[in-house]
Amino acid sequence: MTTPSIEIICVGNELLIGKTLNTNAQWLAKRITTLGLKTQHVTIVGDNVEEISKAIQEAIQRNPCFIITTGGLGPTFDDKTLEGIAMALERKLATNDEALKMIEEKYRQYVEEGRMERAELTTHRIKMARLPEGSKPIFNPVGTAPAVIIKHDDITVIALPGVPSEMKAIFEESVVPLLKEVAGNVTFFETSLGVTGMEEPSVAPLIDRVMHDNPYIYIKSHPKGEETVSHLELHFYTTAEDTSLARRRVSKAIIQLSELIQEKGGKVKPVKA
Amino acid sequence: MTTPSIEIICVGNELLIGKTLNTNAQWLAKRITTLGLKTQHVTIVGDNVEEISKAIQEAIQRNPCFIITTGGLGPTFDDKTLEGIAMALERKLATNDEALKMIEEKYRQYVEEGRMERAELTTHRIKMARLPEGSKPIFNPVGTAPAVIIKHDDITVIALPGVPSEMKAIFEESVVPLLKEVAGNVTFFETSLGVTGMEEPSVAPLIDRVMHDNPYIYIKSHPKGEETVSHLELHFYTTAEDTSLARRRVSKAIIQLSELIQEKGGKVKPVKA
Repeated sequence: MTTPSIEIICVGNELLIGKTLNTNAQWLAKRITTLGLKTQHVTIVGDNVEEISKAIQEAIQRNPCFIITTGGLGPTFDDKTLEGIAMALERKLATNDEALKMIEEKYRQYVEEGRMERAELTTHRIKMARLPEGSKPIFNPVGTAPAVIIKHDDITVIALPGVPSEMKAIFEESVVPLLKEVAGNVTFFETSLGVTGMEEPSVAPLIDRVMHDNPYIYIKSHPKGEETVSHLELHFYTTAEDTSLARRRVSKAIIQLSELIQEKGGKVKPVKA
Repeated sequence: MTTPSIEIICVGNELLIGKTLNTNAQWLAKRITTLGLKTQHVTIVGDNVEEISKAIQEAIQRNPCFIITTGGLGPTFDDKTLEGIAMALERKLATNDEALKMIEEKYRQYVEEGRMERAELTTHRIKMARLPEGSKPIFNPVGTAPAVIIKHDDITVIALPGVPSEMKAIFEESVVPLLKEVAGNVTFFETSLGVTGMEEPSVAPLIDRVMHDNPYIYIKSHPKGEETVSHLELHFYTTAEDTSLARRRVSKAIIQLSELIQEKGGKVKPVKA
């Protein structure tokens, strides 16, 4: 079974100068994994049309089901994600009526609530409705800029805002149903085992053996603190057609590896993943 | 002045399944920026030789001064970064005598300190000394696996461990001097301004104008919380040949933008960047 794969492209100079920690990529990767799909590649590029476009083109060449971008949908001059996507997909940018209505409605609401003085659409507000031709705007329940879905051959490109609360709300409401269609019933299961009294190079051949005997299980060792204090976290995970199968497979691998570690004088204890 | 650029490639399935937050990329990006250089691209790939190799090749095509990788230098089967680099640079992997001595010395020391029983070099320990031909190993003051420097034409490839304490220690000790050589006296300066009483699309044209009048200054607006509560952080930054020039340039832009915002009825206050 090949797990359908997803590319994440995060856009923003603030990520490249280290001002902002990229929590969006981790949050998305975790949600994608939990839904039974696979993030194969994450890219961070700056607010530059050519670089966004190249990142999209490189992602397309890896043939994912979805390309999800974050950031660069707002009203300022450096919000360039849609321009970059348009360039990569060789489409024109055009004012999208549905998106324009969403934005208009938002500002009307803000004025009614007394949070803003004027509702008219300025150039910078209209900019958020300039989408690549053939796009479908997605309502943003938290902020103003709509998200965007574009079908490109077999790939669905989804552009989400960079503000985490907006990105998460749109993902849960409008993206999860699309991913579930592709994932079917596949589920992800993970758990961790703590090891003391053995160091990583000694545990490594035991992991090799257990992964060889359990082809669906992935085991990764994470040294915690210094390697020499001999505290390792072993992280077991798998995807399977149903949760109980996934659990059984992981349990079998954990029991085997625990026994091998104890034979070599190591100690094991469960750890929260 | 074109700022010399750097590519960061982070290797690890744990990043692609969202288990680990990629603090390494942010930490490196911030340090690189502070040193007056520019991170142009960050890539995250899994523990897969072909994907690591492709990421390196794509990075080379963007012609950076440095490619810095994190992760995948350890003793386990899925530590594949050096194999990926070797494939990308078309070099063979070979046991590096200097690296082997570093590792041997580490284990001898661990045994002397009573933290480990046996010092002999197992296959998995020797694996950490299998470097692409022409590599220079860098001593790891915190952990066991040496970091690696490889010159490839005009590009320097630097492979750092993924454990943050090891990565940071090696970066400060052995990588900073190399970056400083390239950066010269260039310094980075940043500061932030808080804006209330105006929303992002209204501030956007004022930013455009100030950036037009101040070609060395980059200004980015970051909506904080909901856009509609009208709290914006404006982040100003620049690089210059000396700190006082950088400060003067930023101050000039801040004064101009503050005046424009106040004319439109907005309020400004200093914010810690």
